[in-house]
Formats: sequence, C-alpha cells, structure tokens
Amino acid sequence: MSLIITNNLPRPEPQALASTVEALAARFGNRLITSQAVREQHAHTTTWLPAQPPDAVVMAQETSDIQDVVRICAKYGVPVIAFGTGTSLEGQVNAPAGGICIDLRDMNRILEVHTEDLDCVIQPGVTRKALNEHLRDQGLFFPIDPGADASLGGMASTRASGTNAVRYGTMRDNVLALKVVRGDGKIITTGTRAKKSSAGYDLTHLFVGAEGTLGIISELTIKLRGIPETIAAAACSFETVRGACQATILAIQTGIPVARIELLNAAQVKACNSYSKLSLPETPLLLLEFHGSEIEVAEQSKNFKEIAAECGGGEFTWTTKPEDRTKLWQARHDAYWSVKALRPGAGVVATDVCVPISRLADCVTETEEDLKRLNLLSPIVGHVGDGNFHCSLLCDVDDAEEMARGEDFMHRLVERAQSMGGTCTGEHGIGQGKQKYLEAELGTEALDAMRALKKALDPQNIFNPGKILPAV
Amino acid sequence: MSLIITNNLPRPEPQALASTVEALAARFGNRLITSQAVREQHAHTTTWLPAQPPDAVVMAQETSDIQDVVRICAKYGVPVIAFGTGTSLEGQVNAPAGGICIDLRDMNRILEVHTEDLDCVIQPGVTRKALNEHLRDQGLFFPIDPGADASLGGMASTRASGTNAVRYGTMRDNVLALKVVRGDGKIITTGTRAKKSSAGYDLTHLFVGAEGTLGIISELTIKLRGIPETIAAAACSFETVRGACQATILAIQTGIPVARIELLNAAQVKACNSYSKLSLPETPLLLLEFHGSEIEVAEQSKNFKEIAAECGGGEFTWTTKPEDRTKLWQARHDAYWSVKALRPGAGVVATDVCVPISRLADCVTETEEDLKRLNLLSPIVGHVGDGNFHCSLLCDVDDAEEMARGEDFMHRLVERAQSMGGTCTGEHGIGQGKQKYLEAELGTEALDAMRALKKALDPQNIFNPGKILPAV
Repeated sequence: MSLIITNNLPRPEPQALASTVEALAARFGNRLITSQAVREQHAHTTTWLPAQPPDAVVMAQETSDIQDVVRICAKYGVPVIAFGTGTSLEGQVNAPAGGICIDLRDMNRILEVHTEDLDCVIQPGVTRKALNEHLRDQGLFFPIDPGADASLGGMASTRASGTNAVRYGTMRDNVLALKVVRGDGKIITTGTRAKKSSAGYDLTHLFVGAEGTLGIISELTIKLRGIPETIAAAACSFETVRGACQATILAIQTGIPVARIELLNAAQVKACNSYSKLSLPETPLLLLEFHGSEIEVAEQSKNFKEIAAECGGGEFTWTTKPEDRTKLWQARHDAYWSVKALRPGAGVVATDVCVPISRLADCVTETEEDLKRLNLLSPIVGHVGDGNFHCSLLCDVDDAEEMARGEDFMHRLVERAQSMGGTCTGEHGIGQGKQKYLEAELGTEALDAMRALKKALDPQNIFNPGKILPAV
Repeated sequence: MSLIITNNLPRPEPQALASTVEALAARFGNRLITSQAVREQHAHTTTWLPAQPPDAVVMAQETSDIQDVVRICAKYGVPVIAFGTGTSLEGQVNAPAGGICIDLRDMNRILEVHTEDLDCVIQPGVTRKALNEHLRDQGLFFPIDPGADASLGGMASTRASGTNAVRYGTMRDNVLALKVVRGDGKIITTGTRAKKSSAGYDLTHLFVGAEGTLGIISELTIKLRGIPETIAAAACSFETVRGACQATILAIQTGIPVARIELLNAAQVKACNSYSKLSLPETPLLLLEFHGSEIEVAEQSKNFKEIAAECGGGEFTWTTKPEDRTKLWQARHDAYWSVKALRPGAGVVATDVCVPISRLADCVTETEEDLKRLNLLSPIVGHVGDGNFHCSLLCDVDDAEEMARGEDFMHRLVERAQSMGGTCTGEHGIGQGKQKYLEAELGTEALDAMRALKKALDPQNIFNPGKILPAV
C-alpha cells in the first residue's frame, strides 16, 4: 500500500498533444497557458499526494470555451480536467495522464436569482462567498459551507458539504439541475427549476459527485434559503466524546433542527486554547448553531441545554449577539490554524470518514487510541450530527518512517469506519487518494456498475482520467 | 398523439417464453402463477392506460427468489417487471412486451431498525403504513406519504413524494442505500448507512426513480424521523389561487418549516362540501400541518396567520387536538372520493405536473381556464410548497370525443408546466404515459445519456422494457 498514486496511466502521444495545444492556441490565444508555474499551480492539492500538473491550462470565459476545449481534446484523445479553486483534498485536480486543464474561475457570473422560488442559476466558477455576498441584500443565502471558499462547480463535483449539512443537506440535496458538456461538446440539461421531479433517470445526481469524470459542469441551478431571522450560537463541554455524541443523537431524535453541531476533541480544544488564547476545559466540546425566529432559537437552545445536562455536559453558554457568537465559535474558526501552529513546518494531512451516528463515539475513541499507540498527532473535528469527522494529521513529509505510520493510521481509520457501517469519505471524495477503499466499501458489483456508467458517458476516457475508479 | 401506448415492443419468442415458464415452474412450484385473473391483476394501473398483463407472476419471498427469476429471464431474454402494490399511476407495472412479473408483496420484513441512527433496513414489499405501524412504539416514523399505501420498493422506484415532501423531501432524499439485483442475478450495493458520502458515483439515486428499468430493488436502507412532540393543523381560505400561492411563498421564504401545505382549488372545495357535508367557503383553501414542540408549532401557526392575513386570507383556524385536526383536514382526506362522487361511473384520470412556485398561481389559473374552455371537470389539489399539483380529470372513457378533449387538456397541461420552467411529472413518474414529454423537457442530449445508462446497466433490455425511454 502506498499513498503515492502512480496510476500508470498512458499519456497521450506527443504528436496528439502537440496538435491539441496548437489547436487550442489558435482558438484561445493568450488564454492558453503552458508556463510551468501556472501548470504547477493547477495541480496544487491540499493533500500530501504528489502534484501532477497538466500540459496546458485554458482560462475559460464562456460555455462555448468549455465546449471547444472538450471538442479539441476529444478529437486528439487528450485528457481534460476541470479546475475551480483547487481546494479539493484528494487529488481531484491532478493530471496523472497529463492533458488540458480548464480553469473556470472566470466563469463566475450569477445568471439568475429567483427570490420567490429560492433558487439561482450560476456559472461553475462562482465561489460560495461571492454568491452569499451577492445574495445578502435579498435576504437569501446558500447554506453549504465546506470551509474553503470553493467554487460551486467544484463543490457539486465533489459532493461537498460541511458544517451546515445536518440541517440543510449536502450539495446532493441542493443542486436542482445542471448543464454538463459531454464528450462531443454538446450540452446535457439534467433537470428543470421545479423543486421535485420524477421525470426519468436522475442525471443531476449522477454528475454531482462525479469529480468531473463524466463531463464538465457549465451551469448550475441551486437551491437557496431565507437568511434566518435569528441565529444563536451555543457551546457545551463534555467529559467524554460519548457524552457529546449521545447529546447529539438525542437532539436529532427529538427533532431539534440544529443548523450546525460541531465536535472538537480534547486535542483540538487544547490546540485552540493555545493558539487562540482561550481557556476552554480541555475535554470534548460541542459548538452549536440554531436558526429560526427569536422564540424558536430560544426554545431550541433550552431543549438542547436539558439534553446536554442529561448527557453529562458542563456549563452551557448561548447567545444571539453576532460578536458573542463569533467569540463562542472562535475555537472552530481557528481550528485549522491552531493545528498548523502545533508543529510549525509539518504537513497537515486532512482526511475524513463518516459513520452511523450510533458508532461515532466508538470510532472517534478508537481513533484517538490509535493515534496514541502510533505516536501521531491529529486533532479531530467532527460534523457530529452527520457522523462525519476529520483528522488533521501532522506529519513531517520528509520523514519516511513517520509517513509510514501516518499511512498506517489513515488506512486503519478507513477500515474502522467501514467496519462500523460507514464510508471512507463523507465529503472529500475519492479522487486519487481513496480509490483503494472503494471496493471494500461497496463491492465489486458497485464498481462494475460505476465502470459501466463511466464507459457509457465517457467512452474515450478523456474526462479527468485516473480519478474515482481504481485501475483494473 | 394518443394516450394508447403501443410501444410496438417485440415480444419474446414463444419457445423462449415457454422455456422460461418451465424453468420458473421447476424452481417456484405454485409460487409461479399463470392464471389470467392473477396476470390481469398485476397489470392493473390507476390510469386510463390500457392494461398489458405479464405472461406469468412469481410470488417472491427472498432475495434469492428475485435473483433466480432474473437469471432465468436473462437466460432466455424475457422481460422481468417488479410489482409492489400496483398503485403507480403511469403504467409502470404494465408488461407491453409480456414477460415475468415478480410480485414482492411477501418480501415485507423489516430487517433492522436503528433508533439512534434514525434509519432502518427493509425488504421492498414493506408498505408505508405497515412500516409506520411497526415504528410507532419506538417514537419514529417514515415521513413520505404519497396517499396510497404503496410499497417502499415501488415508492423508491417511482421517486414518490406526497404531502410531507415540503418539509421532509421525496424518496430521493430519504433513501440512504439500496441493494439491487442486476441482470446476471448478482447484487449491487449502492451505499452504506452513513448519513452522507462522497464515495464514487451516486448509484443510489440512479436507481431511485428508475422505475425498475435498471435492476430490481431487493433491499432498502431509509431514513426515519422522530415523531414530533406536537402536530398542529390549520386551514385558511383565500379569495384567489394567487393569494394562497403568495402566502405559501412567503411562509417558505421566511423559513416557517411547514410539514404539509396543501392547496384545494374552488372546484375541489365545492366537491368536498358536497361529499363531506362541509360548509367551507367555495374559494381556494390552504390546509397546513406544523410539526415541533408545543411552543414551536404555536409560533409557526402565529407567523403563518400573519402572512395569510397579508395575502388576503380569510379566517385562520388551527388546532393541535387530534380529533379537531382530522375534522379540519376532512376535505383533503376525502378529496379523491369527493371527486368520484361528482360524476358516478366516470373514470378519474390522475395526472401531475410541478412548476417553480412563483409560476404556480399562473399555472393553476390557466389550467382552470382551459378546463372551462374544454368543458371538462377536474378538481385540483396541490402540494403547493413544492409547486406540484394534481388534476383529477373526470371522463367517460367510452366517449371518444370527450376522451379527445381530455387528451388535449393533459397535453396542454404538460406543455404549460414545461414552458414555465417546470416538469411533466413531480411525483408520478414517466412510466408509459409521459414518455412523449421527456424530450421536450430535457432535450435529446439528456435522452441520449439516459439511453446510454440503460444500455450500460441493462444491455439485454430485460428490466421493465418500454418504460421511461420512448422508443427510438
């Protein structure tokens, strides 16, 4: 087992590649870029997977640009990789077989906002912060928040979610329809603006999470929500992870519509105390957010407070004042930087798994024991309402022995989650890094089906080859 | 254009069919049924589409039964059609090319209930009422309510929804994972019990809504909810459909988490008054349900009352007492029977469309005008929070001229919905009845993609042939 993904994918013939670049240059002029710096920038991944730059980058501005890049690449059998902001975590934007990267950041127009229907139509390069900035005056927001200011096209492609998913769902639940450029450059429309439909196969949700391997998303229709009248933040420490998980389970069972419920394990709280000069008890911490009317959030907070007390929770703090909310959530906002500061210079390897919530306490506790046994440092943050948690493993990437322990840890983490009825990734995707776990999770028949779908929609294998599906 | 679906599908060779029936008889004994009465019963559809019975019916009891039926049918190239309760509305259980019907009603075991995880694992023949009966003592329920006591396998296959969808989503949002028998009898596992996953293509949602054309669902893992502490019912009449729709839009925009919000148009209210001896104002009526704690539902009702008043609503009645709730919703519960009673002996043709909610008032109003112009009778009931509404067209099926007007009406209804950015079906599915509308809605590229998926997963075309995809 190795984290180094070779894939051994055949690269295109040099002549085919040269012809492709020539045709692209003729069509795109200086929007075709072949400089090493730009190519390397587009292979940037936030994992420890080695960067694999594309052969060239095209800066797309219009849907017709995507269509023409795809047509030219298809003509010569050259791979084509979509790029949003490069914040994916499992090597999704790497180019293991070379090829052409389509950078979609300039396709960032918000085309339509339908306030009465709570939806909007956007280009794939719109980022979630830009979108929410645009929507704020209209009293609307897009709820999916994966942390990074990712592009919506990328978020759809990796089926992203994040802290709000417990209430608002993931990208899967918030994409109404897509336009997708297929191999011959024509465009597939997957749905309408109707809130629900039973009209044929669910193409929309086949492309959501396909990581650009079945076509390139050129337009999205997504659901919006009204900005809640009142937002309350709350925090409560627990003696054990089990207590925090039990409180979460009860809150969800009794139907408290928590908007966010985040677990920080003791190691993460300790890191935050040190980095953000806080004085939180260094035990597992739950941070919550409630959305609703003033009366509703007060009721939700009160109900959760009772549950927390039942489950061995300590002092329960809550507030609706924006500045106090920010302070209360300080630890969560600084989580990433606090981890970095624990061991300056070390790499942070982010990975995630997701288990049925009844197994979350077991999974986190066993993971903590494993870290101790392997002498590794990795604070844990969890979207605990979904049973999804993240490890931020600190490793000296130049220390082969430590990296081997890190690999061992990650492998055991995935096996643990899967043995508990969970998945190898709740929200980061498969990319390159987790291909080796897919068969153990779903079986050969599911992989056969996925391969058949890939072949049906991308018979030339030009769309982001070497991702999701392990080489046969 | 005709509602009579011929499909002109080639039937299997008589020898192949005889060999299939012989092999099935050897395997299943008296669980293989070829009597005309039983075959006809299994082609029963609740539309005016002509019945097309299968050649034989197998009563399945175990997953291995499904596997063996599929293997035998695949060997001889004979169609295989899954059957739950036969309550689908667009000819989904018809057998236009003959073949073998697998009746799944005896596969009705609830295999696992995970109260902490709010999910359960069931066989496909479990009906929603049986499931909710089983769950009640545990304080849980399954929220999807399409009206009929359908099987969960069938509900998944047609992507059913109903009155609760505005809050709890459709079957798409409530299926976590499936087991699906593929053409060689092997089983595809599409997911885990984790609440969310980014692990590969979304096979689960490809099979949800596939109407049994890509494989046979042999097991479902579905989400459950805690039974709300308090349920409130409310009713409010409006002078116009537009007022009722505007109140709905505002309620959703401001984030009132209505559990149900149903529109009855004036014709439907009139029918209910007559049938159920009520004295409701004969104008558009909204019926609502709120779920939550006592304080929450009171707050929700209060907030909606204010919105209704702003939108020209009349008296607003609400209650949390079960017997009063039933009385308040009487009109909705009796809607179907009240329509039947309007014209005893006539056929009731149920059809549905779904539009962006901002266009719902236009769509319903124009539809009412069209009915008047065509001298047709069809009360309208809508899941108005989703923009989804139903027409129950009363027609003398033996009157060719009236049927032609009915066809014309339904055709125009779909075109109207599609021209407003909506879909030809929000929850009934395509089946046979709506194939002719799919291309206008999504385009040839989407149909190409659907055909490619069908070919990839069912290369022999044995699974429910002649459904969803129009003949080329």
